[in-house]
Amino acid sequence: MQPQVIAQNFHEMPIWRTYKMDICFPRRELEHTQKYPHAKLIRLGVGDTTEPIPEIITSAMVEHAHALSTPRGYKGYGDEQGNKALRTAIAETFYRDMGVRGNEVFVSDGAQCDISRLQMLLGSNVMVAVQDPSFPAYIDTSVIVGQSGKFREETGKYENIVYMNCRPENNFFPDLSTSPKTNVIFFCSPNNPTGYAASRQQLEQLVNFAKANGSIIVYDSAYAAYITDDSPRSIFEIPGAREVAIEISSFSKFAGFTGVRLGWTVVPEELLYSNGFPLIRDFNRIVCTCFNGASNIVQAGGLACLSSEGYLALSNVVDYYMENAKILVDTFASLGLKVYGGKNAPYIWVHFPGMMSWDVFNEILEKTHILTVPGQGFGPGGEEYIRLSAFGHRECILEASRRLKNLLK
Amino acid sequence: MQPQVIAQNFHEMPIWRTYKMDICFPRRELEHTQKYPHAKLIRLGVGDTTEPIPEIITSAMVEHAHALSTPRGYKGYGDEQGNKALRTAIAETFYRDMGVRGNEVFVSDGAQCDISRLQMLLGSNVMVAVQDPSFPAYIDTSVIVGQSGKFREETGKYENIVYMNCRPENNFFPDLSTSPKTNVIFFCSPNNPTGYAASRQQLEQLVNFAKANGSIIVYDSAYAAYITDDSPRSIFEIPGAREVAIEISSFSKFAGFTGVRLGWTVVPEELLYSNGFPLIRDFNRIVCTCFNGASNIVQAGGLACLSSEGYLALSNVVDYYMENAKILVDTFASLGLKVYGGKNAPYIWVHFPGMMSWDVFNEILEKTHILTVPGQGFGPGGEEYIRLSAFGHRECILEASRRLKNLLK
Repeated sequence: MQPQVIAQNFHEMPIWRTYKMDICFPRRELEHTQKYPHAKLIRLGVGDTTEPIPEIITSAMVEHAHALSTPRGYKGYGDEQGNKALRTAIAETFYRDMGVRGNEVFVSDGAQCDISRLQMLLGSNVMVAVQDPSFPAYIDTSVIVGQSGKFREETGKYENIVYMNCRPENNFFPDLSTSPKTNVIFFCSPNNPTGYAASRQQLEQLVNFAKANGSIIVYDSAYAAYITDDSPRSIFEIPGAREVAIEISSFSKFAGFTGVRLGWTVVPEELLYSNGFPLIRDFNRIVCTCFNGASNIVQAGGLACLSSEGYLALSNVVDYYMENAKILVDTFASLGLKVYGGKNAPYIWVHFPGMMSWDVFNEILEKTHILTVPGQGFGPGGEEYIRLSAFGHRECILEASRRLKNLLK
Repeated sequence: MQPQVIAQNFHEMPIWRTYKMDICFPRRELEHTQKYPHAKLIRLGVGDTTEPIPEIITSAMVEHAHALSTPRGYKGYGDEQGNKALRTAIAETFYRDMGVRGNEVFVSDGAQCDISRLQMLLGSNVMVAVQDPSFPAYIDTSVIVGQSGKFREETGKYENIVYMNCRPENNFFPDLSTSPKTNVIFFCSPNNPTGYAASRQQLEQLVNFAKANGSIIVYDSAYAAYITDDSPRSIFEIPGAREVAIEISSFSKFAGFTGVRLGWTVVPEELLYSNGFPLIRDFNRIVCTCFNGASNIVQAGGLACLSSEGYLALSNVVDYYMENAKILVDTFASLGLKVYGGKNAPYIWVHFPGMMSWDVFNEILEKTHILTVPGQGFGPGGEEYIRLSAFGHRECILEASRRLKNLLK
């Protein structure tokens, strides 16, 4: 007899990440390398860090790992919410003067993991809004917990998800006067993929909108370290945000920890459910029940990132990637294309008016052996665009620039 | 305006781990240390490893962490499912001749995290059965995803969870002839807290029961390394298990990785939903959407655990804890108490007939300054029992033995 467990409703639904990215995307890469075995492929697709982690940070992890082999240095379980010293350091480094306390910081094994834990907390009976285009994990996890409703081929959208269009025409910020009210708003700034960092005024509008509608903002600031102008680096720079917002962030792109795995989530004590119960208590319960803390070795590395020497060393790596970004922006601009991002984020968002993003992706891959990401992978609002990642070694970026100029000039 | 998000139904429900353990338990410890500031407290409560990790294993993590600071050794994102070499090594080390392939092994950041990811996969519309007593995470995650129904004070049970009583009277194995059929059976062997490892014959019964009823067994083998007799170390030793079982396991207790964080889950390709769709594909989707892989530093350590030298070094640590277990078993036995466990697991399960487990816990704490766990924390079937952990330094175990003999003789 077959198990009687019935597959959940996400079972046959497309997930951008799984279907468009993880299946289509690696498949095309594989096909390409089989077709052109001698071509030197340049990967500017997936936003994966490439530069070594400063030794002051790896040394802290080395030291902690070694100490685990000694009677005095061995440590077992830590607090599920993270080591107190790290929680405090995160609050002091990233939220100085914003009123965030260490006990409101939950250390995680990465932003994506905490997005799914938050979705577990929210459950299936909430309606969510996302920026369109945006990082696919918000929708993908929404589908898994059963919030999304059915996928409509004709629109490329899930019927119960609100897609807030963010394009150059609206300065990459949704028109909130016409946006439907939802329980939750996922908002990523600097945005992946557009690279746009919302201004203070825009975020004030967003907080007021959430307050007026009783929405919770889940603010993803994973790229905040890349902001070069005076755009807010945290939603908690905005007055009143503590009553409506949760912030998810990460060491991945800030510290090259994509494979090392470390992130955090801030849940302010003032954020309440409709019955007045503080959401932080439920999040704490989820963290203690569904997670057992980030690796203690990795947390030691996280603490070293926030030392003054570690932080300075990381700023140099961020600057390096942002110089890459400038080279790519200049490349496309010199070809007369409209190019966005690359100023406050390591992503370049290039417009090819009237073209399908998969066609652009394919043509660039075929003719220059450069992997990008078709904008459609970030939602229907990404159509006509491609995203390039500025993570990469300088010589690859320069070579990519030469090839693109030859192709598109 | 307050956010309109309505708290989910786990909101006000007791969770053993959160309410009984994380709140009551540390509170009692704190009260005790305040009352007796000069007493030397011995912690045999939480099952937390205490002995250093063999250097051959920490060296692999040291090397990997250091390499991340070099251009040649830096690595970014790995596969969400874990490094191929580690997946293969897990399959070969723990599942030799059981037909488990590396692609069926999903590396995780610990068993508890994968329990919650499995619960996300299963959703709220399944009925689950648990051993009573058992590790609280099964019920706690069940409450969070909405499977459990209401908590009944009069029984100490959730109304939609089936509690399969496991006591000495039934040889710690449920009477399956009277057990209701459920979609999912959480089964932990060697069991935490009783320390009992199910026999081959019992597991054959369990697999047949699951097959007959269309149930999925979620088999937790986190303590398999502690088995000293010929009890099966994996459910996949049982013919037919590949069609009905998932196995969750961990490096935590096997390798002292409680704070380092590493585990794995095996989902066989033959395990299907009622519609014939392979469950492994949905689990892969959950892993790729809600998780981003275990830390690459930690995975390097995991691989070293499975080298012949690493494995041998770990066996010595396991033996050390099992000698501790024997000392504790002998202590209680010499006092004429019925004592279980300690033979195939690092837990000792002691019966105090007619007494409330919290009273026993309190008396032992008050009079010997030894922390144990009241059996009731593992479900109503744990009443009259306390659990002691054999993790600890030898001198603490010997001192605990002396104090207990003085108290109970």
